[in-house]
Amino acid sequence: MSVFRYAGRTARMENPIIRQLLKLGQREGVISLAGGIPAAETFPISEIAEGAQRALARWGSGALQYSPTEGLAPLRAYIARRRGVAPEQVLVTSGSQQGLDLIGRVFLDEGDAVLVERPTYMGALQAWNVYDARYREVPTDAEGLVPEALPEDQVKLAYVLPNFQNPTGSLLPEARRGAVVAWARERSVLVVEDDPYGHLYFDAAPPASLQSRWPEGVLYLGTFSKIVAPGLRMGYVIGPEEVIHALAQAKQAADLHSQAYGQAILAELAEAGVIERQEARTRELYRQRAERMLKLLEAHMPAGVRWVPPHGGMFVWLTLPEGVDTLALFERAVEAGVAYVPGPVFAANGGLENALRLTFVSVPEAQMEEGVRRLAAVLEAALAARA
Amino acid sequence: MSVFRYAGRTARMENPIIRQLLKLGQREGVISLAGGIPAAETFPISEIAEGAQRALARWGSGALQYSPTEGLAPLRAYIARRRGVAPEQVLVTSGSQQGLDLIGRVFLDEGDAVLVERPTYMGALQAWNVYDARYREVPTDAEGLVPEALPEDQVKLAYVLPNFQNPTGSLLPEARRGAVVAWARERSVLVVEDDPYGHLYFDAAPPASLQSRWPEGVLYLGTFSKIVAPGLRMGYVIGPEEVIHALAQAKQAADLHSQAYGQAILAELAEAGVIERQEARTRELYRQRAERMLKLLEAHMPAGVRWVPPHGGMFVWLTLPEGVDTLALFERAVEAGVAYVPGPVFAANGGLENALRLTFVSVPEAQMEEGVRRLAAVLEAALAARA
Repeated sequence: MSVFRYAGRTARMENPIIRQLLKLGQREGVISLAGGIPAAETFPISEIAEGAQRALARWGSGALQYSPTEGLAPLRAYIARRRGVAPEQVLVTSGSQQGLDLIGRVFLDEGDAVLVERPTYMGALQAWNVYDARYREVPTDAEGLVPEALPEDQVKLAYVLPNFQNPTGSLLPEARRGAVVAWARERSVLVVEDDPYGHLYFDAAPPASLQSRWPEGVLYLGTFSKIVAPGLRMGYVIGPEEVIHALAQAKQAADLHSQAYGQAILAELAEAGVIERQEARTRELYRQRAERMLKLLEAHMPAGVRWVPPHGGMFVWLTLPEGVDTLALFERAVEAGVAYVPGPVFAANGGLENALRLTFVSVPEAQMEEGVRRLAAVLEAALAARA
Repeated sequence: MSVFRYAGRTARMENPIIRQLLKLGQREGVISLAGGIPAAETFPISEIAEGAQRALARWGSGALQYSPTEGLAPLRAYIARRRGVAPEQVLVTSGSQQGLDLIGRVFLDEGDAVLVERPTYMGALQAWNVYDARYREVPTDAEGLVPEALPEDQVKLAYVLPNFQNPTGSLLPEARRGAVVAWARERSVLVVEDDPYGHLYFDAAPPASLQSRWPEGVLYLGTFSKIVAPGLRMGYVIGPEEVIHALAQAKQAADLHSQAYGQAILAELAEAGVIERQEARTRELYRQRAERMLKLLEAHMPAGVRWVPPHGGMFVWLTLPEGVDTLALFERAVEAGVAYVPGPVFAANGGLENALRLTFVSVPEAQMEEGVRRLAAVLEAALAARA
């Protein structure tokens, strides 16, 4: 008998496809349009260095001791002020990923149905596979989730990315937000609103959040990863106090609390106005890069490849004619020196082979054109072979 | 129908007793001998401030970007060197608590039997209650777990704290270590060796770890919380590569990775020799405080109260005659201005009312005597009432 007799859920945590892709995409000479990471040149390194000193000067050992599971008071207060809620409605988490895990832990029984967009963020699927969720997909179009396609049958929770969705980049319009909330409210469906990219708009700020429309039924996930730096691992969940309490109990068993020092540093950055400056600075940089990427796609992509210009965020989603398989094509692309994320990675129940995700933020500017050219050539050959 | 329909496991996460105790114990004027936290005056604040600068100067945005789930390379290398294993056998976690959670996640199916000491660390119970573990308790005496009492029937994993156990402070002797490993090996029982206090010895270093005796069957949990600072939330699991891989998959779904900046800071402290200096400094301080506490107990405790002088760690465990209920007594103690942790908190399956845990490290030195006096008076009254 083996000493290591794994639990049933462990088999569901493996994702060999993604791991294989990551490994392949890191080959020397490959231009990666596959990343889901922010542009490192936006990180406020010197401000963080100063914040790290000020936090210790102000808090002393208080920034280094065990601290409340819910989060450090000044950081909770800042988040609450920005989101227009009470501090007691805020739970600081180790990135949004932990928020997804804790929500799964607290709400999902084996086999519970979770509504997700098609396509959706793979990290949420990874988090909830642990709790043996079943996925009910709702189709999306250029404007995100299609409310008319929301199911009649009961689901336990609905997971929505209204702002510059990952992977499609779509922005859910005002009317659809109202429709989603009306659908959920009518059925008492808990809504999880994941918003890592809301501050990264290129022209106008997004419409009001789902949470502001139905505070009693929506849990809102925010993060500092895309605005300050992901290596700080700081995100938050906002919801009714009752739910924040349950999530905090779950967090206590998971890791006691998020790093106190990092929270104190972020509180210093918040006080110094660094976070708002970062938002403005990052969205301007990403706007320029998106513009450039869209011009390059226009210039190089073969006929039959379609995309919707994003109005914010980090990604553009390419759709190819049916029959093109971006998963099968991936190795050829890497041989041609370019990497992307194949559509199936974002499909809760399989499919989406004829789509792929590109980032425009983390690819070095000098490589973007060459990357798009290489990808265009690979797709052109695939389309020709198919014809 | 409520929007918030919690999962079955959520009810198991609540621990109203502990919360109630914590709240009571924080009353103004109460001397807390209840803490499980290190002495804040040991935290190397200026070294951390320097490390925080050096980490950014050396790593730049690399200390702030998404980073490998397994941990930053230089920190893994340091831990591996100290523990005499390969870096691939190390997973950096957000404190030992996350190690416990990940182990539960990867190994425990509903109803699996976990062997724990009686008494044992409550945080492990909190972590594994989430996965609906059942507990099989093994008795302990002055030298820790009693090998002769290890069960014949099968358990999924065995959780052992060999060094200056929490809550008893006991140190498992050489021969018992061999016996535990032989028992586990014979039955293919996975052993989880939790070692937060091993560096905090007062005279000699503890005997070799269980892991060094059976690397193929023991997962070792270490932490920087008691030596550097708990607010950094940095711990680690050491085990066979196969298991580290499974735990890393689980961690990816839980929080992607532990804070990169904190890892980079710890790597700087390691390189500068700060960690070893902290070990020496902290054990000397705690040795003095333990000595003082033991003298005070000798001087003030009424007959019938017994304890075993600890040879390291942070705690001393008091046993009272049967019939004294430390849980029922807690409110009276708080009224008398002193707090402790009642025995039942450490009992996986209930009981242990006639015991309590005291810390000697986090109580201000000026308050230690008065705290012990107050507690002695409360216990004396309880013993008199019982007689």
